[in-house]
Amino acid sequence: MASYGLYFRVICHFNSSAQSATLLRLGKMSDFTDHLRPSHDGPAILAKERAQSNISVDELAHHLLSKDGHLQRQARILSILEKEPLFDKKCQANLSREDLFKVALARAKLLRRLVDRHGWSLEDYKMAEALVDDVSPYFLHMHMFVTTVREQASDTQRDYWMPLIESFKIIGAYAQTELGHGSNVQGLELQARWDPGTREFILHSPTLTASKWWNGSLGRTANHAIVVAQLLLPKPGSEGYESVGPHPFIVQVRDLKHHQPLSGVVIGDIGPKFGYSTIDNAYMLFNHFRIPHSALLARYSKIDPSTGEYFKPKIPAVVYGTMTYVRSLIVLQSRLALARAVTIAVRYTSIRRQFQDRDNRHGLEVTVLDYPTVQIRILPLLATTYVLHYAGLAMQRTYQNARNEIERGDFSGLAHMHSLSSGLKSLCTGIVADGIETCRRALGGHGYGGASGFARLSPDYLSRVTVEGDNWMITQQVASYLIKRMQTAANKLDEPTDDGLDATYKEVLKAHRDGLKMEPYKVFDHDSAIVKAFNRRAAALLHEVYVARVLNKTSWTSLMVQLHRVSHAQSLALLVEIFYDTLNSDQSLAPPIKVAMWNLYRLFAFYHMQQESYDFYRSGAVSQNDLDGFSTHIQHLMEKIRPHAVTLVDAWMIPDYLLDSALGRYDGKVYEDLYYRAHRLNPLNRITVNPNYWEDEIVKGEGNSWASLLAKL
Amino acid sequence: MASYGLYFRVICHFNSSAQSATLLRLGKMSDFTDHLRPSHDGPAILAKERAQSNISVDELAHHLLSKDGHLQRQARILSILEKEPLFDKKCQANLSREDLFKVALARAKLLRRLVDRHGWSLEDYKMAEALVDDVSPYFLHMHMFVTTVREQASDTQRDYWMPLIESFKIIGAYAQTELGHGSNVQGLELQARWDPGTREFILHSPTLTASKWWNGSLGRTANHAIVVAQLLLPKPGSEGYESVGPHPFIVQVRDLKHHQPLSGVVIGDIGPKFGYSTIDNAYMLFNHFRIPHSALLARYSKIDPSTGEYFKPKIPAVVYGTMTYVRSLIVLQSRLALARAVTIAVRYTSIRRQFQDRDNRHGLEVTVLDYPTVQIRILPLLATTYVLHYAGLAMQRTYQNARNEIERGDFSGLAHMHSLSSGLKSLCTGIVADGIETCRRALGGHGYGGASGFARLSPDYLSRVTVEGDNWMITQQVASYLIKRMQTAANKLDEPTDDGLDATYKEVLKAHRDGLKMEPYKVFDHDSAIVKAFNRRAAALLHEVYVARVLNKTSWTSLMVQLHRVSHAQSLALLVEIFYDTLNSDQSLAPPIKVAMWNLYRLFAFYHMQQESYDFYRSGAVSQNDLDGFSTHIQHLMEKIRPHAVTLVDAWMIPDYLLDSALGRYDGKVYEDLYYRAHRLNPLNRITVNPNYWEDEIVKGEGNSWASLLAKL
Repeated sequence: MASYGLYFRVICHFNSSAQSATLLRLGKMSDFTDHLRPSHDGPAILAKERAQSNISVDELAHHLLSKDGHLQRQARILSILEKEPLFDKKCQANLSREDLFKVALARAKLLRRLVDRHGWSLEDYKMAEALVDDVSPYFLHMHMFVTTVREQASDTQRDYWMPLIESFKIIGAYAQTELGHGSNVQGLELQARWDPGTREFILHSPTLTASKWWNGSLGRTANHAIVVAQLLLPKPGSEGYESVGPHPFIVQVRDLKHHQPLSGVVIGDIGPKFGYSTIDNAYMLFNHFRIPHSALLARYSKIDPSTGEYFKPKIPAVVYGTMTYVRSLIVLQSRLALARAVTIAVRYTSIRRQFQDRDNRHGLEVTVLDYPTVQIRILPLLATTYVLHYAGLAMQRTYQNARNEIERGDFSGLAHMHSLSSGLKSLCTGIVADGIETCRRALGGHGYGGASGFARLSPDYLSRVTVEGDNWMITQQVASYLIKRMQTAANKLDEPTDDGLDATYKEVLKAHRDGLKMEPYKVFDHDSAIVKAFNRRAAALLHEVYVARVLNKTSWTSLMVQLHRVSHAQSLALLVEIFYDTLNSDQSLAPPIKVAMWNLYRLFAFYHMQQESYDFYRSGAVSQNDLDGFSTHIQHLMEKIRPHAVTLVDAWMIPDYLLDSALGRYDGKVYEDLYYRAHRLNPLNRITVNPNYWEDEIVKGEGNSWASLLAKL
Repeated sequence: MASYGLYFRVICHFNSSAQSATLLRLGKMSDFTDHLRPSHDGPAILAKERAQSNISVDELAHHLLSKDGHLQRQARILSILEKEPLFDKKCQANLSREDLFKVALARAKLLRRLVDRHGWSLEDYKMAEALVDDVSPYFLHMHMFVTTVREQASDTQRDYWMPLIESFKIIGAYAQTELGHGSNVQGLELQARWDPGTREFILHSPTLTASKWWNGSLGRTANHAIVVAQLLLPKPGSEGYESVGPHPFIVQVRDLKHHQPLSGVVIGDIGPKFGYSTIDNAYMLFNHFRIPHSALLARYSKIDPSTGEYFKPKIPAVVYGTMTYVRSLIVLQSRLALARAVTIAVRYTSIRRQFQDRDNRHGLEVTVLDYPTVQIRILPLLATTYVLHYAGLAMQRTYQNARNEIERGDFSGLAHMHSLSSGLKSLCTGIVADGIETCRRALGGHGYGGASGFARLSPDYLSRVTVEGDNWMITQQVASYLIKRMQTAANKLDEPTDDGLDATYKEVLKAHRDGLKMEPYKVFDHDSAIVKAFNRRAAALLHEVYVARVLNKTSWTSLMVQLHRVSHAQSLALLVEIFYDTLNSDQSLAPPIKVAMWNLYRLFAFYHMQQESYDFYRSGAVSQNDLDGFSTHIQHLMEKIRPHAVTLVDAWMIPDYLLDSALGRYDGKVYEDLYYRAHRLNPLNRITVNPNYWEDEIVKGEGNSWASLLAKL
């Protein structure tokens, strides 16, 4: 713990000097509750939990997060952020949406100033953004806007725009999704008609559903946007126009001085949402709005301004590059989002006690995390944080390799990368969104409280399951890719292969061809057998849709539910395989860590196998005898992992500053903090109400306030 | 449609006179978007959906909701509520928590005045409360406070308190849960020590964790509360005291004039939560606070004030009566909460189109609800609304019968009722909480928007899974009850029985005793076989824990995960059985409705069977051949139900006023309403920001506002 202990910055508001100022504000006097203590001692309990594990948090944290100096960066940035009262999170849940947005914009400005003041790198900035935990009004500028310009602009365009972007002289957003179309980019309605006479494009929204919608940072903040529109070209030999598909344009949409939308553009914020209160998602419509020839991002497709000749991209899918980037980023981020939830759940349920043991009613109440009904919800998710970590890193490597190839003009890796990022995005964000809620529920009643640390995390994270390609939709692209791979395997069935997936497919194909029964894998005997079992199950599901689609010509739509399952099964097998390969090839981890990691690997695998028992049975991947043994094996694995649960979440090094959770505090002062937040910080306790229904007064001393309340509705 | 059409009150804000006032407020001029139309016509699409079904919405709605005049009441109350601008929901999501609470208190007062003005019955009031959809600051007064006094007070106490309660001269809450104890009522720490000298009780919180916590309506509003505390009596022959368990006391906690907490009491609101922003959940601590002898609610237990003799309740469980009442109410309410989500999902996905058919790329884009991947998420939940309806009614009947028996001094039905309400509460609220989120996600991106109708429904409903007995905890009580029932069956194995459950248990017990293989049920051939299959699967799971616990003396804790599964399996079988019995005995429904209902029954059953395929296979309830046929059967059932989806949600008669959803509007004007809310109602669009990070100004024209923003944090 020694060296990395520094990286935990625990803010103990209730015994810090910050307290006195707040007390003053709330006008609270001391009272008889000041010296009450909880009936059990959280700090002592967590100290004991930490002492009982032989895992070095330092070493494990270093293994996980030392890449690019993540831990040092986190500590350095955190020490700066903590000094800024504007980033204080304790009372923000009380704010109106308008105030939340104003605060978020002020925070965004402050963050950007800190970049200048401290000479932060982009990685430093992203760390700060993550710790502040607002989805920032500058978010799209800093991410999709700049990425799109970098990837899709011609060299000339890059030279013009990048300095403006980096200096924040312009602020940009990314406007693709429309009111009527999200997933189906081909269906976008906004038109960009090429006018050969003036050598301009005319942006026009022909319908209400053509309105841009959801576009972050654009509702109030940005003055520029990447606007994706159907490029309409004159149809040779006729008066009409035809679309050559959606293309990205870089467009100024607000005046740089008075910040009003330009004439012919209507823009606004779409209003309160499920989460994401701090960002201004936009609607935007155009009325015959003219933009210059240079607005079309021209790295992959362009129009000759003098002849009007259109050059289409060599690979149409290349325009989806930004989306693939974002999907792969979402996969990487998923493990820290889940780790945040699991950290809170493990620490709190280690401290919370409830009920005596039914077979021994004279002892202390039982620690909640010692109940198998709590373990079965939290510990497989603890394992999942590790699984997602290695998958996220692998995804990043694949993305970087593919990007490098594309920059060199080689597009061969694009289909694989697109399929991989789509499949993992769908599976991982689903697991994490559900997992966060599972952790929240495992906290019992206090998980519903504002001090749980979930009030912002949960609704914000839920955006992930539908954003950047709906999780149920994008799996079709994966299944389509996999069916082609199986078809290739079938066509060359008797040729040898050194590709693992190809070999599995051929094994399943041959067994069906020859009417052979495949021997189940001994998943309790060999960790490698687990990987094989997941792959065989995925291949068996794929084989069914391959037969239905390719051989029996079944309609695509009628197969959709199975296609979704195929994609998830293959992505799940991949998660297991990446984790196995990492552990199997690792030479560096200390034995206690290695032992725990293998147990996490088995727990994750067996948990998911049990969830899908019938699949594994039917595909012949696991025997009925082994399937019946999962409950016992899972319970034993949970018993082995339980003593290390606190150290295994500590290793994620998520600071209290980010957790913002009384329940998940590093120091275990759960009840003290819950009470402090309620009794000393809650602004509602400043008002005394008049509860009599026959009197108009709402707040004592304010008289009749109905009219002012009505005005807010 | 004719007669009940009246009960749909569709509020078309964007073409009503209310619009002009709002426009004035937002200072918006007309612009080029005023006359844009969506690319497809929602009203025409829903009209076609309704025309293609031969189900009479009138008749079905009457069948479902005519009990106690629900539909007429809804129409009558709604016409009154609609006239009150204070209940307008359109902008409330923008408010701060403090303003939300103030508005909620004003609304609560107004509702109570409407009771006087219109002579509303309690049922009328509850309807109004449900339609306004605030969890009201008066909620606990109107529900648990009055119920507890009615059920637990002696006749003398009732005579004293009921007039005060009904006139609102006092406002009460229910304070049971503490900071350190929720589920384990026996573990409560607050003490009520009997002082024989003064004939008073002394309420005292010895620790911080003894603080009452979560107690609704008490944080700011109530001046009285039912306070549950450990009753401490002098221990004969010693100086000490001993607890005789938690008992309910009625206690004044705030001054009736200045509304401050009485001396020796600390109370406050616990702060913002996951949902439930409109109600003031409390913390409360006592410092040697004296209350009179008459404070102990004395229907079932009492203390002789002169001798100090304690009379304990005949059946200790009787003090949980209020909790059982609330659980059974939660079960009944679950179907309308889910119906609200499903109504939105079915209507919106009937209108939304996305992507062309992959096998026919020249047609219109496909209606989203025609995708099996959307059907498989929504239609089983549509079926679930009906399943929950009949289960809720059955639960209510059981509760009423048991209450009547208890009033007559017969406590024999208590254990069954407690088990039933616990099992159904756990299963049904879990299905509905998850189902609401499934519906929200099925809406794609727009499900994340504030106009989806889920922004309040989802976070509010999530309280249900942990409140009033955590869903994972209370299933132990069910399993415990069921194990006893199986033990009874085992003890009288060869005696005949006319109880269905008993017979199933004996069949399974005998098969195990005699080593017989049970024949799978033909679930595709007979609807009654489905019920049997569910019961056998539940009995098989129960048999495993019975053997482990009763025969092999396995520890209770190590069996907990299986116990939870047993409870859910039995409750699920009950849902299926109640639905079957209702349909099977019904003589009144028109054939088209009956056909649809049987299909919903099968869809619900097969969907859940497929989810738990391996269980059904292992227990010998369904053959592998049939299990492999579920996908096909489910898809065919969904095709049969699809044309009736809109009428089947219409029949729930949930008014637009309650849905508060652009996506779920009865008239189908989805895109018009989304745009109207964003462009005309969103207050954030009144401000123009200064986006330059080097300038302190946040809102144009307001100068430097950092200090005022900081003051709010």
